[in-house]
Amino acid sequence: MLPRGRPRALGAAGLLLLLLLLLTGFFLLGGYPECERREPGGRAGVPGCARCPLTPRVPLDGQLREAAAYDGDPPAGHGGHNRSACAPQPPLPPKCELLHVAIVCAGYNSSREVVTLVKSMLFYRKNPLHLHLVTDAMARNILGTLFRTWMVPAVVVSFYDAEELKPQISWIPNKHYSGLYGLMKLVLPGILPSSLTQVIVLDTDVTFASDIAELWALFAHFSGVILLRLDRLRQAGWEQMWKPIARRVLLTLPATSLADQDIFNAVIKEHPGLVQPLPCVWNVQLSDHTLAERCYSETADFKVIHWNSPKKLRVKNKHAEFFRNLYLTFLGYDGKLLRRELFGCPSQLPPGAEQLQGALAHLDEEDPCFEFRQQQLTVHRVHITFLPHEPPPPRPHDVTLVAQLSMDRLQMLEVLCRHWPGPMSLALYLTDAEAQQFLHFVEASPVLSARQDVAYHVVYREGPLYPVNQLRNVALAQALTPYVFLSDIDFLPAYSLYDYLRASIEQLEPGSRQKAALVVPAFETLHYRFSFPSSKAELLALLDAGLLYTFRHHEWPRGHVPTDYARWREARVPYRVQWAADYEPYVVVPRDCPRYDPRFVGFGWNKVAHIVELDAQEYELLVLPEAFTIHLPHAPSLDLSRFRASPAYRDCLQALKEEFHQDLSRHYGAAALKYLTALQQPQSPA
Amino acid sequence: MLPRGRPRALGAAGLLLLLLLLLTGFFLLGGYPECERREPGGRAGVPGCARCPLTPRVPLDGQLREAAAYDGDPPAGHGGHNRSACAPQPPLPPKCELLHVAIVCAGYNSSREVVTLVKSMLFYRKNPLHLHLVTDAMARNILGTLFRTWMVPAVVVSFYDAEELKPQISWIPNKHYSGLYGLMKLVLPGILPSSLTQVIVLDTDVTFASDIAELWALFAHFSGVILLRLDRLRQAGWEQMWKPIARRVLLTLPATSLADQDIFNAVIKEHPGLVQPLPCVWNVQLSDHTLAERCYSETADFKVIHWNSPKKLRVKNKHAEFFRNLYLTFLGYDGKLLRRELFGCPSQLPPGAEQLQGALAHLDEEDPCFEFRQQQLTVHRVHITFLPHEPPPPRPHDVTLVAQLSMDRLQMLEVLCRHWPGPMSLALYLTDAEAQQFLHFVEASPVLSARQDVAYHVVYREGPLYPVNQLRNVALAQALTPYVFLSDIDFLPAYSLYDYLRASIEQLEPGSRQKAALVVPAFETLHYRFSFPSSKAELLALLDAGLLYTFRHHEWPRGHVPTDYARWREARVPYRVQWAADYEPYVVVPRDCPRYDPRFVGFGWNKVAHIVELDAQEYELLVLPEAFTIHLPHAPSLDLSRFRASPAYRDCLQALKEEFHQDLSRHYGAAALKYLTALQQPQSPA
Repeated sequence: MLPRGRPRALGAAGLLLLLLLLLTGFFLLGGYPECERREPGGRAGVPGCARCPLTPRVPLDGQLREAAAYDGDPPAGHGGHNRSACAPQPPLPPKCELLHVAIVCAGYNSSREVVTLVKSMLFYRKNPLHLHLVTDAMARNILGTLFRTWMVPAVVVSFYDAEELKPQISWIPNKHYSGLYGLMKLVLPGILPSSLTQVIVLDTDVTFASDIAELWALFAHFSGVILLRLDRLRQAGWEQMWKPIARRVLLTLPATSLADQDIFNAVIKEHPGLVQPLPCVWNVQLSDHTLAERCYSETADFKVIHWNSPKKLRVKNKHAEFFRNLYLTFLGYDGKLLRRELFGCPSQLPPGAEQLQGALAHLDEEDPCFEFRQQQLTVHRVHITFLPHEPPPPRPHDVTLVAQLSMDRLQMLEVLCRHWPGPMSLALYLTDAEAQQFLHFVEASPVLSARQDVAYHVVYREGPLYPVNQLRNVALAQALTPYVFLSDIDFLPAYSLYDYLRASIEQLEPGSRQKAALVVPAFETLHYRFSFPSSKAELLALLDAGLLYTFRHHEWPRGHVPTDYARWREARVPYRVQWAADYEPYVVVPRDCPRYDPRFVGFGWNKVAHIVELDAQEYELLVLPEAFTIHLPHAPSLDLSRFRASPAYRDCLQALKEEFHQDLSRHYGAAALKYLTALQQPQSPA
Repeated sequence: MLPRGRPRALGAAGLLLLLLLLLTGFFLLGGYPECERREPGGRAGVPGCARCPLTPRVPLDGQLREAAAYDGDPPAGHGGHNRSACAPQPPLPPKCELLHVAIVCAGYNSSREVVTLVKSMLFYRKNPLHLHLVTDAMARNILGTLFRTWMVPAVVVSFYDAEELKPQISWIPNKHYSGLYGLMKLVLPGILPSSLTQVIVLDTDVTFASDIAELWALFAHFSGVILLRLDRLRQAGWEQMWKPIARRVLLTLPATSLADQDIFNAVIKEHPGLVQPLPCVWNVQLSDHTLAERCYSETADFKVIHWNSPKKLRVKNKHAEFFRNLYLTFLGYDGKLLRRELFGCPSQLPPGAEQLQGALAHLDEEDPCFEFRQQQLTVHRVHITFLPHEPPPPRPHDVTLVAQLSMDRLQMLEVLCRHWPGPMSLALYLTDAEAQQFLHFVEASPVLSARQDVAYHVVYREGPLYPVNQLRNVALAQALTPYVFLSDIDFLPAYSLYDYLRASIEQLEPGSRQKAALVVPAFETLHYRFSFPSSKAELLALLDAGLLYTFRHHEWPRGHVPTDYARWREARVPYRVQWAADYEPYVVVPRDCPRYDPRFVGFGWNKVAHIVELDAQEYELLVLPEAFTIHLPHAPSLDLSRFRASPAYRDCLQALKEEFHQDLSRHYGAAALKYLTALQQPQSPA
C-alpha cells in the first residue's frame, strides 16, 4: 500500500524527522509504536514504557478520526485524583541533551508572535535548545537581531531561507490565513540538516505551559521503536508520498483552506499507520467550536495551548480567560529574565556573552561611574521593525527622521506624523509589557495605522539609566534612506521641512566629497497649545511677540548660539557656521555618519559629543535658511531631575567627558586639541 | 525518652499539625516514616510509595546532622539522566483538595515580600488554597485590602492576630533579623483551627519554582504514617516539649541568634525521631556559604528557593543570578493574571466576584461608553502603605495632602516633600514592575527616605483608561488626619501652606456644624525652572510681570473663575464664594467629605463632579486669603490627547455627565436642578 520511493527525500543516513504537529496533535512516526506490546516491567532503563503514556483520554479532533487508535493501559485510577500518583511518564531526556525545535516564521506580525512562544518555552525549559527557524528576509532580519541581542545561554538559532522552499510548494493554491508559509512544514525534511534525527515542529501561535522536554520525551520513550520505523518511513519516501496525494486532493478542492493541514490529513487518510495521536493536553485548541474542553476539564495538567483560530485571543471560549492569562503572562514577560544558564551543562554561552561577562566583571564597583559603565555595557534586546513596515523606495535625496522615545512620549507620534510626511525610524525604549501597550496604541490610531513608512524599533529596558545614545544608534542603523534628519521626539518640524530638506539635499549634496551637516534651527514654545507657524515669516512674528523662543534660550543658550539666529533671520541661502563648545544643533547628515557615543547614558552631553565627532571628521556645518523645528514643553525627565539633584551624577558626567576627549585625541591627534581646550573653559554642564 | 505531656497542647482531637519548615527543610512527623519498610509494589493506591521519594540525594545542611538519616531506594540510574524516567513520586493531592498554608507576616516590608511568595505559589498551583496569615495590625490592614481587591478565585485567606501570640514567646530573648515574629512559628499549633490536619508553613522569603501540591504530596504520601505518628506526637506534647528545652538552651546562649530555628534545632537534637528530612530541591538555600549548590548542580528540578540571608537578593552566590531571575519574575509579575479559576472544581469565587462578573456581563459592548463603564467596574488590586510609614500623631487640626500619580510624575515627589512638610497620602497607579522601580526610587532618594509621614498606596494598573477618581478615593480613604487637602501631583503648594492651613482650620473649624471647603487659589507657571514665590506679595508681583498666570487662564478659565482672583488680591480674611458651573478649585475639607465619583475615568470632569457634590451637600466655599498653590508645566497626558482627538470620547463624557446629573437629582431632589441648568448652557468641555 505504501508507495516506495527514494530515501533521499528524507535526507542522508540517520535522518529521522519526527513531525510533531501541534495543529492536529499527532506524531509522524511511520507506524504504530511497539511499546504497548512489551511486557509491563520491561527493560529497566525505560521504566515508563511499561505503561504507555500516550493514551488519549478524550476523543481527538474530528480531523483525526483516521488516525490510529491507541489502546495503551489507562492510567491507574485514584478516585477523584486528577493527577495520578506516579502516573506513567516517558523518561525525560538526559539533563544536557539538546532539543531541536523547528518553526516557520514570516513577516512582521509572526516575528512578534513567535517571541511569546519562545518566551513560554524558555521559561519552563531545562535543556539546551536548538531553534531551526525557516524565515523570509524580514523575519530573518528581525529575529536575527533579536536573538543576537537577547543572548540567551544554551540556545542556538539557525536560519533557513523560506524563499528557497517556495518553488517546492508554490504550485499548491491555498487560501488559509497562514498563507504559503503554512505549507512549508511539508518540505522541512528536505532542508533540515541530515544529522538531525528528530525535531519538534511548532506553529507560532502556541503557548507552552510546561517543559518542552516532556514533549521531547514522547520521542525518547519510543527511541527503539522510532529507529525501527525509520526504515519504514524511508521506504515510504515522504516527498514521493505527499505530492501525488496533494495533487489528487486539489482536483476536487481548488484552493486549500487549511494549508498544510489539508494535505497532512489526506496523507493520513491513505496511510493511517503514519500517525500516533498525542495526548490532548499537548494541544489544547482554542477555536470557537473546539472539543478541547473535554480534555482540560478532566485534567489540570494541560501542557500547550494552541490559538488556532483566526480570532486568536478574541476567541469566544468559555475558559478563554484562563488561557489568555497564561498567554499574557509570556506576552508581557521580561525576556531578559530568561538569560538563565543551565546548571551542570557545558557552557553554551551565545556569541559575545563571554567577553561581555568579562568586561562587566572588570568594572570597579567603587568607581563613582560604576552605574554608567554598567549601563553602557548592557546589551539590550532589540526588536527591529516591531510593526509592519514598508521600506521607502530608493531615492537618492530622500531623508528619514530619526528619533527615540519611551512610553511617556507616545502622544507625540500622531502630531509628528502630521508634521513629517516622510519616512521615520524611531527607537522605543520599552518593557515587554509596554511594547504591547504601544502596539495597541498604534492599532487604535487611524493616523499611525495609515503610515507604513514609519519603522518602530523596540529596545527593551534594562538598567537604571536611559541609554539615549544606544537608542539613537538603533534608529539610525535602521534608517533606509541615503540621508537622516537626527531629531528628538519632543520637536515638531515645520510642515514643509521634509520637502525642503530633500530639495536642499539635492542642491547641496551633503554626502559628496565635502561632507556636510545641514543645520535645522531649533525653537521652543512654552505653551502646549499654540498655532504652529506655517512659514519662516510667521515664526519670526511669534518670536518677536515673545510666544516662541530660540531653543533653551533661558536654560542653556550655548547649545544653539553657534547657529547664529540673527543671521538666520535675514538669510536667504545656506550659510556655514563654526563649531563651538557645547553646540548641539539638529542636523541632516548622510546615513553613514558617525554613530552616537554610547558612553553617555542618562542625561547630558549625548548630542554634544556627536556634533564634536562630526566636526572632528570635518563635516561642514551649513545652516538652512528656511528650515526650522519647534520644541514642545514637557516636564523634566527623571534623568534630568537626577542630574540636577546629584553631585555624583555631575561628577561622573565630567569624568565621562574627559574620557571621551582622551579617545578623541587618540583618534584625531592634534586636531582634537581644540575640543579639550574648550572643555577646560569654565561652563555649566549641559 | 520522649517526655509525656497532655495532648491539649496540640489542639483538639484530630489536630495534626505538620510543620514543614523551609528554613531547614524537615518535617515534624513525630517519627520515622514507615514507607521504606514496605515491600516494593505495595498497596496499589499509593504506587509512588514503593520507592520512597524523600531520599535526600545530598548531605543536608550541617544543622540537620541530627535529623534522621533516610535510606530509601536510590532512584534507578540512567547514565547521564538527571530526571529519571517515572522517578518515584508521591501521589499528588486530589484535583480540588484544599491545601493549607500558614505564613507569619508583620510590618510593611514583610507585607510586600509575601506578595512575591504568593504570586509564585499561585502561578504554579492547581489546587484551591487556604492561606492562614498570622499578622500584626499593619500587615492585617495591608494584606486584607490586597486580597479583597485581588479577588483570586479558589483562595481563602484567614487572619490571626500576632499580638495575641506575643506573650507566649516574648520571654525568649532573640536578636535574629526576623525578630519576635520568627518565633511565632513555635506556637502555631495553638492558634490554627483544630479541624486543620496539616499545614505548610512558609517563610516570607521563599519563591516557588513548582506546584505547591508537590510539596503537599509529601504529606499525602505518608498519610498512613502520619496518622500513626500523630499518637506519638500527641504523647510527646509539643508545647511541653519545646519550652523546657528552650529554657535550657538559653542558659548557655543569652539571646537566640536564629530565632525559632535555634529552638527547633535544640528540640531535634533531643528528639531526632521528630524529623524527616526534605529533599534538598525543596529548600535551595541562598546564603553566602550554602551547600545548596551540591543539590541543584545535580538536578535541574529545584522546587523552592529560600533567600535565607539578611543580604537577600544581593547574596554572593555564584548562581544567584539564576535564582534572582526567578524571583524577579514574580516580583514584577502582573498579579491580575493570577485571577484564574480552577477547572472542574466547585466555584470558589471570592466575595463580590460574582456580582462583579454579573455587572460586567450586563454591559452592552455596543454602548459607545462601554470602555468607560468597564473601567469603572474594574476592581484594581490595592496595596496600601507600600512602604514603611509612621502615622501622624492625632492632632485635631492636622491636614494631609492627598494626591495621585503614575510613573511619569515620580520626579515631583522630592520637590513636593520640600514644599509640604506635613503628612501626605498618595495613590500611585503602577504595574507590578513599576512598583519595584518606585521602591528603588524612594530608597535612592535621601529626601524621600527621610519622610516617614508620606504614605504611598499602590493601585495596580488594569484597563485602558486612567481611573483618576478611584485613585483619589484610595488616597483619601487612607488619610489619617481629620482634614485633607485635595491636591494634584503637578501642583506645588506655598512653602507656608501646611502651617497656614492648620491655623486656618483651627480658626474656621470647617468640620463643625456648618461644613466648609477651604479654597486654595491655584496658579500656573509655564517655565520648568522658576523662583517659587515665598509670599503672596511675591506671587502677585510675578503675576503682574506675566511670569505666573491664574491656573488654566488660557485654556479653561471657567474652572477657577469663581475663586475671584481680583478679590483675592486684596483679601485679608477668608471670603465666601458661590458655586458656578465647571468650578474645580483645590480645597481643604474634613476627611469624611464625599468620595469622588468613580464613573469619571480618563480625562475630564473628575474634580468638577466632586465640587458639585460638595455644593449639593451645602459645604460653604471659603477662599483663604494667604493660601496658594502653583501648577508646574508638563506635556499633556495620553488621556488628554485621546480626549482631544476623539469625538466618541467627548460624546461619552457628555453621556456620563448626564447620568451623573440624573443621580444628583435622585439624591438631592429639586436642589440639584441648578446643576442641570448649568450643564445645559453652551460650554466647551473640560
